[in-house]
Amino acid sequence: MPKLSQKAAAMPASPIRKLMPYAMKAKADGVNILHLNIGQPDIKTPDVVIERMKHIDRKVIEYSNSEGFEGYRQKLAEYYQGHGIPVSTSDIMITTGGSEALTFAMMTCFDPGEEVIIPEPYYANYSGFATMAGIKVVPITTKIEEGFSLPGAEAFEALINEKTKGIVLCNPGNPTGYLYSREELEKISALVKKHDLFLIADEVYREFCYDGNHPFSAYNLDGIDQNVILVDSVSKRYSMCGARIGAMITRNTDVHNSAMKFAQARLSPPTFGQIASEAALETPQSYFTDVIEEYVERRNFMVDGLNEIDGVLCPKPKGAFYAMAKLPIDSSDKFCQWLLESFRLNNETVMLAPGSGFYITEGLGAQEVRIAYVLEKEDLKRALAIIKQALTEYPGHTN
Amino acid sequence: MPKLSQKAAAMPASPIRKLMPYAMKAKADGVNILHLNIGQPDIKTPDVVIERMKHIDRKVIEYSNSEGFEGYRQKLAEYYQGHGIPVSTSDIMITTGGSEALTFAMMTCFDPGEEVIIPEPYYANYSGFATMAGIKVVPITTKIEEGFSLPGAEAFEALINEKTKGIVLCNPGNPTGYLYSREELEKISALVKKHDLFLIADEVYREFCYDGNHPFSAYNLDGIDQNVILVDSVSKRYSMCGARIGAMITRNTDVHNSAMKFAQARLSPPTFGQIASEAALETPQSYFTDVIEEYVERRNFMVDGLNEIDGVLCPKPKGAFYAMAKLPIDSSDKFCQWLLESFRLNNETVMLAPGSGFYITEGLGAQEVRIAYVLEKEDLKRALAIIKQALTEYPGHTN
Repeated sequence: MPKLSQKAAAMPASPIRKLMPYAMKAKADGVNILHLNIGQPDIKTPDVVIERMKHIDRKVIEYSNSEGFEGYRQKLAEYYQGHGIPVSTSDIMITTGGSEALTFAMMTCFDPGEEVIIPEPYYANYSGFATMAGIKVVPITTKIEEGFSLPGAEAFEALINEKTKGIVLCNPGNPTGYLYSREELEKISALVKKHDLFLIADEVYREFCYDGNHPFSAYNLDGIDQNVILVDSVSKRYSMCGARIGAMITRNTDVHNSAMKFAQARLSPPTFGQIASEAALETPQSYFTDVIEEYVERRNFMVDGLNEIDGVLCPKPKGAFYAMAKLPIDSSDKFCQWLLESFRLNNETVMLAPGSGFYITEGLGAQEVRIAYVLEKEDLKRALAIIKQALTEYPGHTN
Repeated sequence: MPKLSQKAAAMPASPIRKLMPYAMKAKADGVNILHLNIGQPDIKTPDVVIERMKHIDRKVIEYSNSEGFEGYRQKLAEYYQGHGIPVSTSDIMITTGGSEALTFAMMTCFDPGEEVIIPEPYYANYSGFATMAGIKVVPITTKIEEGFSLPGAEAFEALINEKTKGIVLCNPGNPTGYLYSREELEKISALVKKHDLFLIADEVYREFCYDGNHPFSAYNLDGIDQNVILVDSVSKRYSMCGARIGAMITRNTDVHNSAMKFAQARLSPPTFGQIASEAALETPQSYFTDVIEEYVERRNFMVDGLNEIDGVLCPKPKGAFYAMAKLPIDSSDKFCQWLLESFRLNNETVMLAPGSGFYITEGLGAQEVRIAYVLEKEDLKRALAIIKQALTEYPGHTN
């Protein structure tokens, strides 16, 4: 058999991949698993979306333009303008999820061997997209004890060399739920300008900001118009992850036009998903108000509950629907496996994402887990009880 | 502004990209353009697909598994078995169009700098996917005068070196409509076995075979189970290009498992498209019978008509819905541009794809154009009249 590529070997497996066989075994044994390990919300997709699909009136499900349907792009530009973000229709390229926007941005801006700085812990698939493009991820570590706040400019400066080509920020952040302040972003902006870097800003959790906080978009940073690439997605906003519709947005026409060559090679983003996403723009504000209220309640319940457990530290997130928690355990990889393999409370257990998968620095995150509070409160209640009880019984408990 | 990547610079633009401004100008001037330049059929998507979408009963448009919905994969395996192709459910990974299947196959199997042999003229986007993976395409030239039949094994042997990792075949072929015989495929199979290569077989036009011909699938070649990767798509089969659903199919579990890491990074193929594609499997045979009848009539009309024009050579394709034609002109790039810019017959013109875009060897295809016979006969009639008249008036006409 011919040998596979080194790239395939280097591709990181998903942080929960190793746990899958244990989850399948538990399921086969009739155990109910509460999934706090994934960002698949249980929130209903807006009715306007489902209704539009039910009234689809096309005879031929054709390709769209490679940059997406013109009508959708126009309405999407209006959505941003309504959020105070100065996006023009021509800035927008519709992509197959935020994933493809990240791939296009990285392939367009980075040559193999070049470096991208990403605050860790970060969304694990950034490593996958970087590997596909042959890019080296240079992490800048943020600490759970400091609430994941961004280190100062000098920490960034220490990492910047002639191979550094850009920075990726996720705001609000997955897996931390951290919301960057305007001041933090302006510091990043100064660095981007000084060293002439690209700033890839993943803002897919924009709508999920709590406690009266508002997100500050990287698109509103002054003086780095040509450096900013916004990555967006309808997946979380309208709880329609399966639509696979995202966007790569930039005022840099060279980046846009070059990325168009990648977009043309794959022909077009999904037509059904674009129809659904255009409909989603008519989602009433009440939908978001309800969703935010629901998430705040879930977050408060889950995070407060976790912090009440002896030895647990869980900074309260200001955005997204994830929380990182530090547990009194030897290894979150082992703990998450043990939960699936050996622990049951009333024939239920929880699946969590081990923290190590979100750090690239070896050894970090070993005591942390990511908890996605994407289930309803009744489920979260039982999940919390399970975690609490499990910690008292887990053989690798530390103090 | 930071520099863009060399990969972005190396990405080939679509063969018709250069023509787009001229097409837009003509359209703005009120000229009707008959589009023979793209593979977007005018054929209706099967009713079962549209009906299924109208009765969608999901509350949340969730991600599917990264390898696609289990139920769809099972039914798809049955489809292949019904066509005498021994595919198991576990062989199948659902992808975002055939495009993503090609990207995954290339990234999984080839390291940057390695070589893939592809008979030219070939589907232009193969070059794009190869560039994304950093692979060098080594063309093996087939000739319009020989009806695009495959050169003998010795011609392949002359191109194989220690960097050669695989062969890509499109069968039936885009842009030629050529259908490989079982004997030709068995010769390729022997080469693949002898040199331990991957064989990536793009069989997306399987259903489009004419004159009683049947396609022989690379999956049925003996002794190269571990080498064959099938690329497929619902785009053309059910005239639903916009669904963006394809598949990467292999019995090689290492290839499958490694490609899964790329699949997991992008989360999932489109959910709506998979629902539509599962429904499409219930398309009645009469749909295909009607479509084939329609395409045979179009092909016969177009190809016979072209061959009647003085100095035109157009081999009759046995499959797909494209034909390559050699015209008595100096340059197909210039001719195609001139058609859009300067030629009108009753305020109409045609858009064709210049042949050069389908060859990688410099200079080849300069007199050839690709004609997609995807319009109804009345349109094709006018298109043929336009081409005939245009050839008499074109300043670069040769004899």
